[in-house]
Amino acid sequence: MHIDHTGIAVRDLDEAITFYTTVLQGKLVDRYTNTAIGVETEIAVIHVGDDVIELLLPTSPTSPIARFMKARGKGVHHVAYRVEDLDESIESLKRDGVTFLEDTLRTTAKGRRLIYMDPRHSGGVIVELCDYPTIKQ
Amino acid sequence: MHIDHTGIAVRDLDEAITFYTTVLQGKLVDRYTNTAIGVETEIAVIHVGDDVIELLLPTSPTSPIARFMKARGKGVHHVAYRVEDLDESIESLKRDGVTFLEDTLRTTAKGRRLIYMDPRHSGGVIVELCDYPTIKQ
Repeated sequence: MHIDHTGIAVRDLDEAITFYTTVLQGKLVDRYTNTAIGVETEIAVIHVGDDVIELLLPTSPTSPIARFMKARGKGVHHVAYRVEDLDESIESLKRDGVTFLEDTLRTTAKGRRLIYMDPRHSGGVIVELCDYPTIKQ
Repeated sequence: MHIDHTGIAVRDLDEAITFYTTVLQGKLVDRYTNTAIGVETEIAVIHVGDDVIELLLPTSPTSPIARFMKARGKGVHHVAYRVEDLDESIESLKRDGVTFLEDTLRTTAKGRRLIYMDPRHSGGVIVELCDYPTIKQ
């Protein structure tokens, strides 16, 4: 288990990209909009050294990122941990009483499978678990 | 530049340690209290793979962590980036117009030197810059 990326809710995506690519010397590697209901987010992916930052701009007031910012303000939205086999991890965690925000996995266009843990387990941080079944670690 | 650690504000340190060491399979490597005025925080250091999580419990209502939680709730308090030479980085960033929350560096008992950037640059995330001058990278 290790951190895959840190997701940060922002109000101005261009300004955030400028900060991460200049002050923190990161590299913008991808920028796209996920219009799926329940996501509705424009995403910029930045590499800072070997670390990955996802900058998240809601594209609709019903986006979970918009709801997060309304309640909590800007800042870190989630920390994603990469596991080898997400099905196995979920099974094992459910046996230990861990609950998840959704019943089913999502799969991104980039081939990442992910699920969010119920934040009551993690002291308020939204923890994503993910794997990349088509990419060897 | 790469992420050194992620600092997470918590209300129950034992519960958070249990989460990170069981669900996320981390290892508790240190636990100590920094009673310095302006810090006043109990800190548990967890390694998850090669990543480092600092769990932060305020020990006084005047702790910056207590003030953060009052305004924002529990969750990620800061993301720390490690640089090779902190003096040089600060000099260079100041020339580019970046401002910091304090005028002087802090040095932890563990030999980490650190400074917090003004969060207005980073879209609300508190960004720490740090180095370990006595430890070769």
